Order: sequence, then C-alpha cells, then structure tokens
Amino acid sequence: MRRWNFAAGPAMLPPDVVAEAARRLRHWHGGGPSLLEVPFTGPEVAELLHDVEDELRTLLAVPPGHRILFVQGGASLQFSAVPLNLMPAGGSADYLVAGYWAERASAEAARYGHVRRIADAGTVDQGAAYLHVTSCETADGTWEPALPDSPVPLVVDATADLLARRLDIGRCGIVYAGAQKNLGVAGLTVLIVCEDLLGRARPGTPAMLDYAVVARNDSKACTPPVPALWLTSLMLRWVRGRGGVAVLEARNRRKAALVYAAIAAAEGFYRGLAAPPRRADVAVCFRLPTPDLDRDFVAAATEQGLLHLKGHPAVGGVRACLFNAMPIEGAAALSDFMRGFAARHA
Amino acid sequence: MRRWNFAAGPAMLPPDVVAEAARRLRHWHGGGPSLLEVPFTGPEVAELLHDVEDELRTLLAVPPGHRILFVQGGASLQFSAVPLNLMPAGGSADYLVAGYWAERASAEAARYGHVRRIADAGTVDQGAAYLHVTSCETADGTWEPALPDSPVPLVVDATADLLARRLDIGRCGIVYAGAQKNLGVAGLTVLIVCEDLLGRARPGTPAMLDYAVVARNDSKACTPPVPALWLTSLMLRWVRGRGGVAVLEARNRRKAALVYAAIAAAEGFYRGLAAPPRRADVAVCFRLPTPDLDRDFVAAATEQGLLHLKGHPAVGGVRACLFNAMPIEGAAALSDFMRGFAARHA
Repeated sequence: MRRWNFAAGPAMLPPDVVAEAARRLRHWHGGGPSLLEVPFTGPEVAELLHDVEDELRTLLAVPPGHRILFVQGGASLQFSAVPLNLMPAGGSADYLVAGYWAERASAEAARYGHVRRIADAGTVDQGAAYLHVTSCETADGTWEPALPDSPVPLVVDATADLLARRLDIGRCGIVYAGAQKNLGVAGLTVLIVCEDLLGRARPGTPAMLDYAVVARNDSKACTPPVPALWLTSLMLRWVRGRGGVAVLEARNRRKAALVYAAIAAAEGFYRGLAAPPRRADVAVCFRLPTPDLDRDFVAAATEQGLLHLKGHPAVGGVRACLFNAMPIEGAAALSDFMRGFAARHA
Repeated sequence: MRRWNFAAGPAMLPPDVVAEAARRLRHWHGGGPSLLEVPFTGPEVAELLHDVEDELRTLLAVPPGHRILFVQGGASLQFSAVPLNLMPAGGSADYLVAGYWAERASAEAARYGHVRRIADAGTVDQGAAYLHVTSCETADGTWEPALPDSPVPLVVDATADLLARRLDIGRCGIVYAGAQKNLGVAGLTVLIVCEDLLGRARPGTPAMLDYAVVARNDSKACTPPVPALWLTSLMLRWVRGRGGVAVLEARNRRKAALVYAAIAAAEGFYRGLAAPPRRADVAVCFRLPTPDLDRDFVAAATEQGLLHLKGHPAVGGVRACLFNAMPIEGAAALSDFMRGFAARHA
C-alpha cells in the first residue's frame, strides 16, 4: 500500500532527498570523516553554509541588504528573540493575530513590552517597534493572501510557507522559519534579517540570540547544526530541480484544489475552517459533522495509508498538510478517500 | 591510507554509528515515513526521547531526582540560560576559571549579575547562586581531576567529557553538554537538572530557555531536534555495546598515555600544555619549539592521514582530541608519527 504523510511537522521529506542522504552517509562510511564530523571552523562547513545561503538567496530572491543566518531553537525561540532584538525597553510592538501561532508569538512578546494584538494591518501604530505577522497558520488552515504594507519593520514567521509560495522578502525586516516543514528537518531555523535592524538588541539578550552576534560570526558564533544544514542543502537542491518556488507554488495550488474540491462536493458534510482568499494551500483544515466522525475519519484514513491527519490539539478536527514534498498523487489519494467516506457517511 | 580524525567538534563518530544511520535511512526510504518525518507529538518521537533518556540515565547513573532534558543551541546558549535560570536579579555566582571555555561562560554570565572568577573551589562564596565548573577544557587540554565539593549548587559544563569518564552526576545541580563530541552530532544539547532547581528563572527569561518550561513539556515545548536525537540514540547504544563509561574511561586513559608517552620520549621537543593530574585524556595539547614547527607538524601529519590536529585558535599549538569514538589504533598512529617527526626535527 502506498502511504502518504500529511504531518504538520516534522513534515514529509521528498523520498529522493532521504535516498540521497542515505547514499552519502554510506559513501562517507569508510571514506574518511563525513561532513558531520569535521571542525565547524573549517572549509567543509563554510562551503555548506555558503551553499545553503546561495540557494536560499536565489530561490527566495533575497536582496543584497538582507543577511541570511542559521540558528537553532525553532520558531518558538524566535518568539523571544524578535522582541529582544527589536523592541526597546518600554517600547511596543503590533501583532497581527489571525490564529494559534500568532497568539503564541504575541503572548511571548508581551513578556518584554507592550504588545497590541490587531486584526487589520491597516491599524498599525506608527510608534510600534515592528509589526509581526504569521504568514501561514497551520493549526487553523489560513494564510495571509499577501504580506501587508507596514509603516514599521515587518517581521514574518514564515515557518509554514517559506519556499511553498512566493513571498516578497525585500519588504520584510525579518523573516524566520523553522526548517521542519519545507526547508528540511527539525533543528535548524533560518533567519533573514535586513542589515539595518542589526545591532538593536536590548541589554541582557543572550549572546547567541543577538542577531548582530550571529551575523558578525557568519552563523558560527557557536557550533552550527551541521546535520540539519546538510539535509537542508539536499532539500534546496531538490526545490531547484523541481523548478523553484513559483513552480512549487502552482503545484501546491493544484494539490489544495483537489482537497478543497472534495470538501465542496460533499455539500456540507465537511466544513472547511477557512474560506478563500485566506484558506491556505499548504494546510487544509476541516471538520466533520461530529467530533466522533472526525476521529472515525482519521482512523479510516490511516488504515488506507493516509497518515497524520489529526488536527492540531488546540483546534481539533482534521488537518492535511500539503507542503512542497507532497506530490499531486498524495493530495489526489486524500481527495478520493474523502469523497468515498462522505458517500458512506453523509 | 587509514585516516584518523582528531577534530574537537563536531568530532569523529564511530564508523559503526555512521553505517547504522545510513542503513536505517536506506531502509526507511520507500518504507513509509522515516523517524525524521513524523509529528513530534506522536508515539515515535516520544519513544525516541524515552530511549535516549533511559540510556543516559543508566550509563551516567543519573539519580531519580534529576531530570534529563533535551534542548538546542549548544553549550554557548547555556552560558546565558544558566544565570537566567539560577541567578536572581542582583545575585552573584562563582566561576572556577581554568581555561578558555570557563572564561567564555563567565563573561556571558557577568552580563546578568556579579560574577566572581575563582581559581580554587575552596574559596566559593556561600552566598553565590551557584558554582560553575567547566569539567574539561578542550582548548587548553586540561580537566578537573574530580568535581569539587561545593556549598552551593554545582553547575558543570561537561561538553567534552560527559560519557568519556565517570562523573558523579548526583553531586551536580546542573550538567550540560553539547552533543558534538561524545554524544552524537551538532544540534543537540543534553541538560541534566536537579528538580529542586526548576522554577527559579528570572522574569524575562525566554520561555524556551526556562528549564521549568522545558521539563513541564518533556522537552517538547517546541519541536525537538529529532535527527540529532536519533543519532544520539545510535551513539548511546554504541557506548553501551562497548561496555559503558568506565570501560571507555579506561580506554581513553590508554589512548592518552600513548600520546603523552611520545611527548615524554621526545625529551622537550614537544611541550605539553598541562601536567598530571590536570592534563585531560580526551584532549592532548602541546607545542613544538616554534610556531613554524607547529604548522609543519600539522601539515605533515595531515599528509599521513592524521587529520584536524591544529590547536584552538585562542591557544595555538597542536591539539589531538581523543573522544570516545577514537580507537586505540588512532592514538597509536599519532604516537608513532610524533616519535618519527621528533627524530627528524629535534
């Protein structure tokens, strides 16, 4: 039975990337130190960092004035690092809150200063240190149709959609993303920082969280997470081989359309949690008529090889993540299963 | 030509561990989601975390009142997290400073309160929030012959010697170690925390650095670094298969003795940076008569397959790291080379 993995994170990797990683590990065995076993100050790790940076800069069209940095701790640690780096003591920040993860980010930031939770980017306070946006909410199945205009530096948590659709990085002050959805595996966080925003960290910011320290040391202020970076380098090559972000964005749209069509065809049996243009292509969230049916659906899908469809605990229901690694066939298999399940239970 | 990797970090992995990792990745390919691609809230990751914790608890004889936690960011991030978790505002801490890494740790802690750098653990201030000790200094080639007695909680950076020799964890309030020397690969930090010390973090501590938050969430407050944890699980099984810490400690002593004997036999041509009982078995540091000869030695050794022998930039000279993964044969090859080089150049 073919199996399809709809997990939100760590998410599915392209099978080609897993195979390539295995092939290289096997080749290293006996051939001298692998890339995982060399000094992080040496040429092999420098080349890896440059390779990942170059690929990202090209794939995402990152402008020259933005640094690309590599850190650890996930997006959750950035929930603290962002205010520590950008919000002065006694300052404030605005958070566009449209879902679970923005709520989490704003709650952490509120420990460092005044945080305004806003629903409309048109109401941003001109005195705010920054505007924070979670560009895609995987728990809720929504995304921002476009990055908002902002009179203050725009900070974007793009963990769920970086590389999955085109985002105008040049308009962002800071973009951060945990790697375990579209960029690779858990244990790496990619940071894109406009150089103008470096050097503002408040006193007492842990040195390893200070973006200026990370930038000054070319992401080697401490030992970088080399294995995760290595897998990201394989992943980025795969993205390039598939044609880049615009091609994957179009493919993601086709995948999502297959699943949303199954929701529509069931005439109310499935209730999508979001509507266009805010529903996300990479995380389709819906409910069945009862929580019992949600559970039955997930269990029956699992038996058919459609895995990890349970919704985020904070939201419930069903969630199908359709990140870059998921092929059309996986989305089609889910769509077919949904039509059959609805026919049997509606 | 057989090659030997004396890198300080990321350090050599046992070839058996690299081969096993490759084998499993290959097996996963096509067999459904690998361990790197499943939800971190699910049973597979829970089992991995329990497995690593159980192995560590047994191998290190960690008492029941100590939690074993898994975080990211390396020992360098713990240089901040330790004072944030243990030193109240306006408080103080004592740092036993005997080398480069203790200097780094104490400099970071001094940003959070009064730090006394002491040379003798007998002079600890009873009012200090804790005493910090770097049990092994890899840049300098020294280690503490034994963990000191302390009237205040003892905090140990054991990045270089955890699992490489027996340490009495029960006497420590906190032990932390980056994984990239004896525990696995870069991107994982192991924390062992006495439960009594949880819940003391000062306001403004980033949530992901608050040990109580990490403990309450069983190291899943954010997505854990699953690939690094997986490699650590393979590494710990290897350690157990070799007979455990006491057996490896004895083997490390034999490896170091081979290299120190070559230093002694050269009658002053090599100058060891440390003397017994403070010289470390896992990092042998020495200088030749001139910096030019240091360079010639490292270059000639590299040609003979003896890799990554350059000393830490802050210290210079030559450094041979002999962590658990290095077999006796590697230390013997270095010892032989040293004798020959001395005979040619003395």
